[in-house]
Amino acid sequence: MNQNRDIVIIGCGAGGGTAAQFARKTDRKSSITVFEKGKYPQYSKCGLPYAISGTIPDIKDLIEFSEEWFKNANIDLLLETTVEKIDIDNQKVIARKDNDVIEKSYDSLIISTGARPFFPPIKNLEQKGKLADGVYVVRTIDDVEKINSKIKTGGHTTIIGAGLIGLEMADNLRKKGMKITVVEALPMILAKNLDEDMAKIVGEHIPDDVKILTNHRVEKVELTNRKISKVVIKNQEKNEEITIESDLLIIATGTKPDIDLAKSIGCKIGTTGGIVVNKRCKTSINNVYAIGDCTEFVDYITAKPSLVGLGSIVVRQGISAGINAAGGDYELHKGILNTSTSEFFGIEIAAVGPTTKRINDIFTVVSGRFNGSSLPDYYPGGKPISVKILVDKYTGLIISAQAVGDNAAQRINMFACAILGQLDVETLRKLETAYAPPIAPTLDAVTLVCDIVSMKLNRKR
Amino acid sequence: MNQNRDIVIIGCGAGGGTAAQFARKTDRKSSITVFEKGKYPQYSKCGLPYAISGTIPDIKDLIEFSEEWFKNANIDLLLETTVEKIDIDNQKVIARKDNDVIEKSYDSLIISTGARPFFPPIKNLEQKGKLADGVYVVRTIDDVEKINSKIKTGGHTTIIGAGLIGLEMADNLRKKGMKITVVEALPMILAKNLDEDMAKIVGEHIPDDVKILTNHRVEKVELTNRKISKVVIKNQEKNEEITIESDLLIIATGTKPDIDLAKSIGCKIGTTGGIVVNKRCKTSINNVYAIGDCTEFVDYITAKPSLVGLGSIVVRQGISAGINAAGGDYELHKGILNTSTSEFFGIEIAAVGPTTKRINDIFTVVSGRFNGSSLPDYYPGGKPISVKILVDKYTGLIISAQAVGDNAAQRINMFACAILGQLDVETLRKLETAYAPPIAPTLDAVTLVCDIVSMKLNRKR
Repeated sequence: MNQNRDIVIIGCGAGGGTAAQFARKTDRKSSITVFEKGKYPQYSKCGLPYAISGTIPDIKDLIEFSEEWFKNANIDLLLETTVEKIDIDNQKVIARKDNDVIEKSYDSLIISTGARPFFPPIKNLEQKGKLADGVYVVRTIDDVEKINSKIKTGGHTTIIGAGLIGLEMADNLRKKGMKITVVEALPMILAKNLDEDMAKIVGEHIPDDVKILTNHRVEKVELTNRKISKVVIKNQEKNEEITIESDLLIIATGTKPDIDLAKSIGCKIGTTGGIVVNKRCKTSINNVYAIGDCTEFVDYITAKPSLVGLGSIVVRQGISAGINAAGGDYELHKGILNTSTSEFFGIEIAAVGPTTKRINDIFTVVSGRFNGSSLPDYYPGGKPISVKILVDKYTGLIISAQAVGDNAAQRINMFACAILGQLDVETLRKLETAYAPPIAPTLDAVTLVCDIVSMKLNRKR
Repeated sequence: MNQNRDIVIIGCGAGGGTAAQFARKTDRKSSITVFEKGKYPQYSKCGLPYAISGTIPDIKDLIEFSEEWFKNANIDLLLETTVEKIDIDNQKVIARKDNDVIEKSYDSLIISTGARPFFPPIKNLEQKGKLADGVYVVRTIDDVEKINSKIKTGGHTTIIGAGLIGLEMADNLRKKGMKITVVEALPMILAKNLDEDMAKIVGEHIPDDVKILTNHRVEKVELTNRKISKVVIKNQEKNEEITIESDLLIIATGTKPDIDLAKSIGCKIGTTGGIVVNKRCKTSINNVYAIGDCTEFVDYITAKPSLVGLGSIVVRQGISAGINAAGGDYELHKGILNTSTSEFFGIEIAAVGPTTKRINDIFTVVSGRFNGSSLPDYYPGGKPISVKILVDKYTGLIISAQAVGDNAAQRINMFACAILGQLDVETLRKLETAYAPPIAPTLDAVTLVCDIVSMKLNRKR
């Protein structure tokens, strides 16, 4: 092993920061340099919405590893420094901080450049390449600091996108006394995570004062003194326009991978637009790894490429790339499950694997849903829980699962485990789950949903 | 299939009641008769402690299927009726209700006679075959009604046995203002469910005013007017005696299977003292099934016989026996996991599979424990969670798991699934668990405990 290996990491998000940490754990003697174009070292992007409501009182609390931490770990962290070029022939990167140019050689390079927000085509959204005043995305501490400076009780926020981030923002801005309208182009909320019947259950829990406009698009923003004042929204079914006054417009319509640097050195880019990586996070270029939102990896269930977009996957890639870049050996599991969760308006949701819409062309599925209580009927305080599973008709294998309500995430972790262990629904329905009156019924929702699907399967055979 | 099959069930606990229900679902035309020696139809025995504190306001709420329910399902339920004899040559049972003798033929017979409390040898405990006034077990609605009639705020209860039921009773009686002493002969609490280090964590959460005396035995009770007044307890280490005044003595030292009827007809009895049954709940006698606390079944992990003693298993046996007895076909999984959970003094515990003490002669295990928080550090409101797993040194397979703290039960269900799916720790540590700041960290306790063991294993190889 090279005793003085040079490891360079581009980007200090969850991926790059974790990679640095695990590279250091793997090789105490290596030189590790992290270039980060932003002002802060590794912080939780997923935590940003909660720094709006005040649930997280100080936004700086989101910083998981401080500059001091990097210093103590003997990792060179260069903030506000942008990598401009990678020279693969000489294995070095060229970066710029203000007017200084920094060159750094690498034995292993880890690209963790993340993703850029995707903007739908909206009139007046941008002014000379900059978002209009009052229009924000939720990607950085800076974004949230700007949003916080514009919040006013009784004011109105329009949010574009009824996915996880859109609804998390709705909940947190509402807690600050703002009126909320969420505009979603699709006919349903949470289309990436849930089937329509499950999303409907979530919808029933969203407070009446939060207006959710599905099948609507924001067409235009109107500005007063260069600041947003109104949002023009089109009802796509009725082809009608409505105009609402809005102090804030939050865009939560997803991202696209930031692959400019990777592309410039010829890294193979996949069909999803992400950098192609393997189980060891290697790209097609020698000694170059890539991790995080700029990459794609194979979906364990569909065997198709999938953009990486979840913090849980990014961190695992960071562990793998960090260890491998430092001369260790760490392979990720052979595919990603896209296990996800969130909580808004007091309701917990979670899912693993593709929704029905995404899977119908790959598998023939039998699905079932159970709606019940988290506790036995006779025990007070039971909370609603709905679980839906999708099962392959021919093998009985669990393909995906969705849950809304009590402990949705931990219940979904069990299904993620069942998918990884390739358990069929017949076996899983016989799994002995933990039972005690204050905790769970003798037959938990996770069992009863398997019973429902198992009976359907037996009828169809 | 016999269109007018006669199904007879002895015992209407969770096992017998569930069997009746599933027999009826399987065959609408069969005649189903249930004999129950007690006063009530199927009720939750596990719920009994919560009818003491008032958490469950009316003890009758514990009845899960009423007499009316059985009537509507066209099931003959005979309460306060004791089966005295089974005639296997003529396939009939002979029962008695007061002075009436009832004979009933069967095509399928299900024995669900449950278990009897086990009493440690204590002087003056019994008076003419009856427990002394103020001494109770926690097996029936009658028991709890008697306990409730003796509760007095500021009074003192001694509980023998620091297992799940002993500690549940301690918590619930304390809520009624009673002072509590728990006496445990073993050097630790919860020895059946947890390893010593995990039990210690639970111990730290038990309020100081609940006295837990491990390594102690109750030697004698002293009576005043035939009613308990004092309990004489021996410290087994120091060989000293202490005497405490006590208004109540609760015995929670476990049970032994009630197998008299099964034995009388020659059912094979196993080494644990339970009736031997197979995956279809059949005994060694033709057309006779047995389920519940009177049976033993093979432990999935140790491959040794294990007494059935958990409601979750009993109900699953009831489903199987009910379906099979009615001519259907339902096999249980090939072994039991003994997944268990409870909650007392605000702390949730759960476990699956054997403890270290029970397993050391079968497997060479590597174990690890993770103590952390249920949420990311930066998110407020995280609760402590400790998870311990035992892993086979040579195969890396998960053998058992224990959890204390936040959502212990749902976390243990995931490990139960991993055991059933024969996942090794290397694979399980790579499982993508659900992450969102208000719900769980990027790497949940269930992942981090796998990391710890995986690293230990790699060092040992």
